[in-house]
Amino acid sequence: MEILEKMRCFMEPESIALIGVSRNTDSDSFNVLKNLIHYGFQGKIYPINPKTNEILGFKAYTDIREIPEDIDLAVIITPRGTVPDRVKECTEKGVSALVIIAQGFADSDDEGKMLQEKVIEIARKGKTRIMGPNTFGVINAYRGLSTALPRFELAKTPVGVISQSGIFFVGLSNIMFGKAIDIGDCCDIDFADSLAYFEDDTDIKVVLLHMEGVSDGQRFFEMAKRVSKKKPLIALKTGRSEIGRIAAQSHTGSIVGKDEVYNAVFKETGVIRANDEEEAEDLIKSFLTFPPMKGKKIGIMTWAGSTGVITVDACEKHGLKVIDLSESTLDMIRKLSPPSWLPLGNPVDIWACMGLKGFNLANFRDEFKIILEALLADENSDGVVAIIPDFLVLFCSELWDVSTVVKEAAEKYPNKPIAFSVFGPKGVLTEKLNESGKTIAFNSCEKAVNVLAKLNKYYEFVTTQTQSGKGT
Amino acid sequence: MEILEKMRCFMEPESIALIGVSRNTDSDSFNVLKNLIHYGFQGKIYPINPKTNEILGFKAYTDIREIPEDIDLAVIITPRGTVPDRVKECTEKGVSALVIIAQGFADSDDEGKMLQEKVIEIARKGKTRIMGPNTFGVINAYRGLSTALPRFELAKTPVGVISQSGIFFVGLSNIMFGKAIDIGDCCDIDFADSLAYFEDDTDIKVVLLHMEGVSDGQRFFEMAKRVSKKKPLIALKTGRSEIGRIAAQSHTGSIVGKDEVYNAVFKETGVIRANDEEEAEDLIKSFLTFPPMKGKKIGIMTWAGSTGVITVDACEKHGLKVIDLSESTLDMIRKLSPPSWLPLGNPVDIWACMGLKGFNLANFRDEFKIILEALLADENSDGVVAIIPDFLVLFCSELWDVSTVVKEAAEKYPNKPIAFSVFGPKGVLTEKLNESGKTIAFNSCEKAVNVLAKLNKYYEFVTTQTQSGKGT
Repeated sequence: MEILEKMRCFMEPESIALIGVSRNTDSDSFNVLKNLIHYGFQGKIYPINPKTNEILGFKAYTDIREIPEDIDLAVIITPRGTVPDRVKECTEKGVSALVIIAQGFADSDDEGKMLQEKVIEIARKGKTRIMGPNTFGVINAYRGLSTALPRFELAKTPVGVISQSGIFFVGLSNIMFGKAIDIGDCCDIDFADSLAYFEDDTDIKVVLLHMEGVSDGQRFFEMAKRVSKKKPLIALKTGRSEIGRIAAQSHTGSIVGKDEVYNAVFKETGVIRANDEEEAEDLIKSFLTFPPMKGKKIGIMTWAGSTGVITVDACEKHGLKVIDLSESTLDMIRKLSPPSWLPLGNPVDIWACMGLKGFNLANFRDEFKIILEALLADENSDGVVAIIPDFLVLFCSELWDVSTVVKEAAEKYPNKPIAFSVFGPKGVLTEKLNESGKTIAFNSCEKAVNVLAKLNKYYEFVTTQTQSGKGT
Repeated sequence: MEILEKMRCFMEPESIALIGVSRNTDSDSFNVLKNLIHYGFQGKIYPINPKTNEILGFKAYTDIREIPEDIDLAVIITPRGTVPDRVKECTEKGVSALVIIAQGFADSDDEGKMLQEKVIEIARKGKTRIMGPNTFGVINAYRGLSTALPRFELAKTPVGVISQSGIFFVGLSNIMFGKAIDIGDCCDIDFADSLAYFEDDTDIKVVLLHMEGVSDGQRFFEMAKRVSKKKPLIALKTGRSEIGRIAAQSHTGSIVGKDEVYNAVFKETGVIRANDEEEAEDLIKSFLTFPPMKGKKIGIMTWAGSTGVITVDACEKHGLKVIDLSESTLDMIRKLSPPSWLPLGNPVDIWACMGLKGFNLANFRDEFKIILEALLADENSDGVVAIIPDFLVLFCSELWDVSTVVKEAAEKYPNKPIAFSVFGPKGVLTEKLNESGKTIAFNSCEKAVNVLAKLNKYYEFVTTQTQSGKGT
């Protein structure tokens, strides 16, 4: 596939030309060349700057056409007025992939619109594909590559992002992007092209899409549906409101359709929509941590009736089911509970069982393990949500470690996700749970439920697609 | 008001009797007496335990009636079957306030229901008011008081909570409760009584209500409306779903009405509803940090078009308005922006202004200050939302400190809230903003907008109430 080869020139270039790279390399400067050296980029680097012969030890060229070797990727960092000439030189050089950083094109005034048309016209005559304008270009942490002006931390995570804004290069609260594509104002390379790159990329397991608008809806639909079958796509679709759409159009100059249309497209293509940055991050972490949620039934373990109620509320809101546990599970819990503790059921309240142990938390390991595993073993649960308060730090004592118990339970029942929410301050208990690598401690009970519901929706999409695929 | 005197006996007792306090005082034990000593409770403490003469250096009594002095508050820690007799002794002693820790009453089996009826009958004959059963009782950090079995950290914060569950005693992620009331199964003391205590309490500025159900709707309505005028009440109302209501009934045995009814009540009484624990915390922090949001107009400062779009979406969703800034503000920003940067407006994109400074962030202090203050000064904004990415750590450099700039701006324009959202990892920039004491860095753009919308709703409630009060 030709586009795949082009996308590899963007993402995995052997050689890179920096057209108009700044000679300002002091500590506060935004300098792509300085960044590439810092990241340890392994390919060849060619600065283009007619005002100097050398920058940071690299020979500088006056014109890209002077470079004696082939160039996979060129980055144009010059102001907008000069961009068409530079693009022309790149096409003459036979550059495969080109990033245009500058803004002030179709999103701006008449001159900008004219300049963008010129760029597209020149590019169409050659074989050069363009990312941008108004973009930071690409990040590939696996190769020490970033074409952005500011310096970001790079981390080899299995998370990709395709965005219409460079701000996503900074990552989310606790998630860095191993590979990032900022399609910017999207005059050529778009979501479908970028998705093609991620489809069979083994480095990346989950992809976040930051979308304001899509130019070629049909191509996006087909590509998203194809890639969704192989890895989860999470969409932060913005420009939802009327006024937000106007703002989005002025930001990227692209056409922004009705929000309901996007909801329908996401549903059909298996793309999971996140409401805000925090939910996007919760979903990314969940897809990386949990096994598939194969059904809608939730087993709830709680330390207080109140958080059980909150969790049951959330299950109904997000379409999950809280049904009675099987008799054998209830029998097991009954043996661990005081006789007046009624009704026994789902949620399972571990406070009562602790009462029977004289609230001696340090000795509560066995009961905690038995109940958690009983919930996982139960045929009436497809996944477990557990809520415990932060002050149970004795769950992380020398006598027993909640992290180990959860890890063992997850390994014993590898087909059901266990989502935690720690109530209260996020201290050592939260850290221990997250450290287990088998669960995540979410910021609220509802957030824990929400991710399991969306994991289940994705599982259903993939299953349906595979089955219908078999039928044809 | 008689109830206020009784509530003071619960919250500010001079003397406390612990009926059935455990002799188990080892490190893992849940022991109220040990906790009170640890907290430095200033009043007199009387352990009641017929099996011993002394616990932790305190003379133990066999029966509360033997104590030679008056008792403000008694805490019954014995199993449910023994509770009616202990309550009877307390009424005979003339105890004002009584906490019943045990559970297994109206929320449990027939025996439990019968026991609860007995307790209520005994109490009605005397002057003893009861909190619980199934409660942790009260916390008053200002007096080193907690009647809960587990040991929580106490902190003298201006935040109160009235809950139907002891789990709230643990606090929220970054908010501890200076005073807490767990009304538990609410056989006597209820939300209205607890609200009466907080009405004129100068220690507490904001009160969180965790509500599953209300027994006396009319009294709650009147008291909530009265207290709302004096301080913000934030409600985490659970048992929203059909199945959640059933779970809530089995948890506290109280009647749980339709969710829509609660929405109507909250609207009329000025109570602000939070969807989950995280939103409750965002709101509490906002009411403690920000001045009132007196109108619906938002000025947006952003570092990227994309986060501007996200914020505009959120404003429409939450009923706030993003309108054009005044000509003088636009002129000021125009001077700081490159000529091709169009359209200029609201949101204001500071990336462009940084471009004119050669992206030298260390020198960007003046522009940042000018733009932020222009947005605050503008008659077309009642509050400001600002979104900046985490990597702008040079905003916290030796040359300038974003914390100081924000603090100065907030002091110059003390009538408009400034809510931040830091995009990406929550590092030093987030810390600096929060440290300013004048703003909060929220977990997403939408969360920043949401709190300002709810601040405005509360302001409108208080204003309407005050005006209608004047009219009569």
